[in-house]
Amino acid sequence: MDTADHKFMSRAIQIARQGRFITRPNPSVGCLLVVDGEVVGEGHTQPAGGLHAERVALAAAAKLAAGATAYVSLEPCSHTGRTSPCADALIEAGVSRVVFAGIDPHEQVAGAGLDKLRLAGIRVDGPLMQPQAEAINPGFLKRARCQLPFVVMKSASSVDGRTAMASGESKWITGPAARADVQKLRALSSAIITGVDSVLQDDSRLTLRREELTIDENSLDWLMANPPLRVVLDSHGRLSADAAICRGEAPTLWITGTEVDRVISGVERVSLPLENGRLPLLAVLELLAQRQCNQVLVEAGPTLSGAFLAAGLVDCWYLYMAPKLLGSSANPLLRLPFEKMSESVNLDIAEVRTIGDDLRFGIQLAEGAVCLPV
Amino acid sequence: MDTADHKFMSRAIQIARQGRFITRPNPSVGCLLVVDGEVVGEGHTQPAGGLHAERVALAAAAKLAAGATAYVSLEPCSHTGRTSPCADALIEAGVSRVVFAGIDPHEQVAGAGLDKLRLAGIRVDGPLMQPQAEAINPGFLKRARCQLPFVVMKSASSVDGRTAMASGESKWITGPAARADVQKLRALSSAIITGVDSVLQDDSRLTLRREELTIDENSLDWLMANPPLRVVLDSHGRLSADAAICRGEAPTLWITGTEVDRVISGVERVSLPLENGRLPLLAVLELLAQRQCNQVLVEAGPTLSGAFLAAGLVDCWYLYMAPKLLGSSANPLLRLPFEKMSESVNLDIAEVRTIGDDLRFGIQLAEGAVCLPV
Repeated sequence: MDTADHKFMSRAIQIARQGRFITRPNPSVGCLLVVDGEVVGEGHTQPAGGLHAERVALAAAAKLAAGATAYVSLEPCSHTGRTSPCADALIEAGVSRVVFAGIDPHEQVAGAGLDKLRLAGIRVDGPLMQPQAEAINPGFLKRARCQLPFVVMKSASSVDGRTAMASGESKWITGPAARADVQKLRALSSAIITGVDSVLQDDSRLTLRREELTIDENSLDWLMANPPLRVVLDSHGRLSADAAICRGEAPTLWITGTEVDRVISGVERVSLPLENGRLPLLAVLELLAQRQCNQVLVEAGPTLSGAFLAAGLVDCWYLYMAPKLLGSSANPLLRLPFEKMSESVNLDIAEVRTIGDDLRFGIQLAEGAVCLPV
Repeated sequence: MDTADHKFMSRAIQIARQGRFITRPNPSVGCLLVVDGEVVGEGHTQPAGGLHAERVALAAAAKLAAGATAYVSLEPCSHTGRTSPCADALIEAGVSRVVFAGIDPHEQVAGAGLDKLRLAGIRVDGPLMQPQAEAINPGFLKRARCQLPFVVMKSASSVDGRTAMASGESKWITGPAARADVQKLRALSSAIITGVDSVLQDDSRLTLRREELTIDENSLDWLMANPPLRVVLDSHGRLSADAAICRGEAPTLWITGTEVDRVISGVERVSLPLENGRLPLLAVLELLAQRQCNQVLVEAGPTLSGAFLAAGLVDCWYLYMAPKLLGSSANPLLRLPFEKMSESVNLDIAEVRTIGDDLRFGIQLAEGAVCLPV
């Protein structure tokens, strides 16, 4: 593969990125059709049930697709889901070569798409720029590989590592730019996980706010109609029916221990057996993966956030640090009751950037996890 | 003033920077002599008692100084200290024009140097690039203006704002590059202030270590012979005579309350009346200013560091942040027992940079304080 292949694959990945808010539970894929160094068609995955990237690009290219090279940011699918296989579409259109970024790990694809192309006499090259392509779909890929969602955690703290005064005072310590950035994290998520304490204390809604989301109108329209699931972890069933999160602005999943038998109208409840009096977080994630949640955002208080982190379940942690000191009586960023230095956690800070007046730390916690290009 | 003036003043400031470790209690000044756009002599202040910048440059230029333009990063002195006035030397050498960066606020100069030059018929232009020039000598300038030293504070913390385990475990949480950087902060300081608790707990020496200091050999030689004063704040006279800091590796000033009457051989003790059972920090700084300390470094534990910050006495705070989580039982970065959000402190983070595996935050605390170009 040569420089031109890199250039066109870059473009295919860039196109894939445009679809990243609207394709869940599918991956967002980009496809570029090139003839003699000229792009004759391009496209990205449409919302679930709509066309896949290859078919958008083929439709754009029409007859020009014959003999073209197709650049795809993920292996074309070989199975019939809500749409028929993209590999078949490429074959029918007569493309001569397919360059792919990475194999689709979905159990119904996993190389079968490429095999189909090769059997049809199409030259197949790749993988090319796989890490860059995979950064678009960390949730889809992790779920396909591990049957778990990609877990992003969001926290906000002062420079001295505190989140709120001991009295609970201070809902927002970060500025509007950081809040808008968190809206993007929510928009990338299939579900937002919080704890009942945060809900009871802050009456949080965990919704998308159109006016705060600085993304394209098409994505906004789709997101407003398909907001992320709000997941409330509530071992002992303390959620109030009066909480804003129960008002039906977006779907809410209420997860409690099995001894709870309360019902809140309009709110789905699922129960899990408690372990040491707490909801088992791995089981929560497995449950969300079964519901096709690719990426989930943990937006919780110090105790639940600390528990997710201590359990090794977080892939990428975004810490928004406000240029403030809240003092040593204030609440900790994460409740992690370590006693010995040997318990301390080493962090891989992938990125620090300014977001308005605040700093954002992008911290990789899982081996090989990518911090998302928000 | 034109582009050439800016260029030559930049160079004069760059030269001044070379002397910044070795001129205390004097400012480090740079002087450039230029004839027809050619540099005919340059130099920076030599260690106290040696030549000032102007005389170094004049000596280098010799007869070529006649008719030259002199670029000086601080107003030439007009008084006789350990050396005779630099203004006189410039007049005698026959320079035709002097461009200065800023007025010397020293009470014996304060414009009198420029007046002297003007009276001698020399054209005087300025101020030019004053902020950049002043960043070289924040301590000298603050002491001249406020009779107080420029106070730099150094802290190290984890990302969750902790300094050590509750047990006290963990002397070093930052890496070798951060420690070498702290050596530079020490080298820029006339005095290093610590609390007796840190001395008793860590047996800290607060010395310069030649092998860790990445600066030029001349400065190193001078610094090893003239290490910063170590200042131990010890209200109740608990310092042990066996502490490493009492071993005479560098001078130590032991500041206690007036009721203390202990003596430690080889250690100078000064007493101050306690206020609310504590040493008055402003009086400590005044005392150090009287002893010609330009810049001081606070390297102390969370309580003393918190007290300096809460009293508004810190100009610039360097926070080294290690990519670690020490957990919520660990000791706080600063002991600041705020109860209300209104007590929280807003910080002006002037700079964040990586130092080895750690991050360094340069935080301006005093109005207009410069964080030092370490």
